[in-house]
Amino acid sequence: MKRIAIDMDGVLADTTRQFLAWHEQETGIKLLQKDIIGKKESAPFPNLYDWVNRVGFFRHLPLIVGGQEVVKKLCEKYEVFIVSAATEFPASLADKQAWLNEHFPFISWHNIVFCGSKTIIKADIMIDDHFKNLDYFEGETLLFTNAHNALADAGRHTRINSWEDIAKYLL
Amino acid sequence: MKRIAIDMDGVLADTTRQFLAWHEQETGIKLLQKDIIGKKESAPFPNLYDWVNRVGFFRHLPLIVGGQEVVKKLCEKYEVFIVSAATEFPASLADKQAWLNEHFPFISWHNIVFCGSKTIIKADIMIDDHFKNLDYFEGETLLFTNAHNALADAGRHTRINSWEDIAKYLL
Repeated sequence: MKRIAIDMDGVLADTTRQFLAWHEQETGIKLLQKDIIGKKESAPFPNLYDWVNRVGFFRHLPLIVGGQEVVKKLCEKYEVFIVSAATEFPASLADKQAWLNEHFPFISWHNIVFCGSKTIIKADIMIDDHFKNLDYFEGETLLFTNAHNALADAGRHTRINSWEDIAKYLL
Repeated sequence: MKRIAIDMDGVLADTTRQFLAWHEQETGIKLLQKDIIGKKESAPFPNLYDWVNRVGFFRHLPLIVGGQEVVKKLCEKYEVFIVSAATEFPASLADKQAWLNEHFPFISWHNIVFCGSKTIIKADIMIDDHFKNLDYFEGETLLFTNAHNALADAGRHTRINSWEDIAKYLL
């Protein structure tokens, strides 16, 4: 059974939507997708590093459409691990696990990884929205489209635009 | 540069000493090393699963002698990751990272992994006190002696009795 390592932020959890909402709430400025596309994730949001260090930020993130259903199906065919770069923000750790337990109750604690560098991950397939994670992975790499990577050349990675596309590709 | 994955509980942190202390505190019964040797870790301590689910248990664990000094030296020769099976006890996550930051400030967040199953870890050497982690690891495996494994046959793993021994073996 092949093993898939699936990222959380920007792949399962819609961090971008929450960044836009919190930015509007705190500054009164409503940014649109077109204002952030192709920019480094933190560039449009001066308060981003403050937010991600707050207890609660990661607890109530909205879901990316289709993730729950497709991950559930992937679990029948693959060994699925959720792998999140979380140790940079220790306040996120318990929030992230509670969020997973709420929305992905079929993922056991055995299959959750909170790490820093993902170079330590041994799997066959990695789904991630960051080149810094995919570039060092030896297996098959799926680049999940997000505003910050939308204009970049995917290079050796396979670009995937939605969970519907992942279902078509992997199921 | 070879990568070492080093366990926390029972290898860097002296969970056994704290189990003995908390057991005496809560029951009035003073157990000695000879009372627990060769027994499954939880067997002598009926309250163990309660303790490890409490916020605070992992925050103030005593250190295993020599760990700090030897890990610091290993960092000069190896790529060192601290890999702890922590997602079974979500209350432990922030405590474990705070404990590491206090006692091992030279370990970056990049090199910390909190996981469930360690089958996902890609490294060259693993130091752990549990067979369940070492048995599925493809690289070199060092079994760190602890009361619960002290009487077992190490099998294909190399038994190591102290951080002094690790220094001799790896430095």
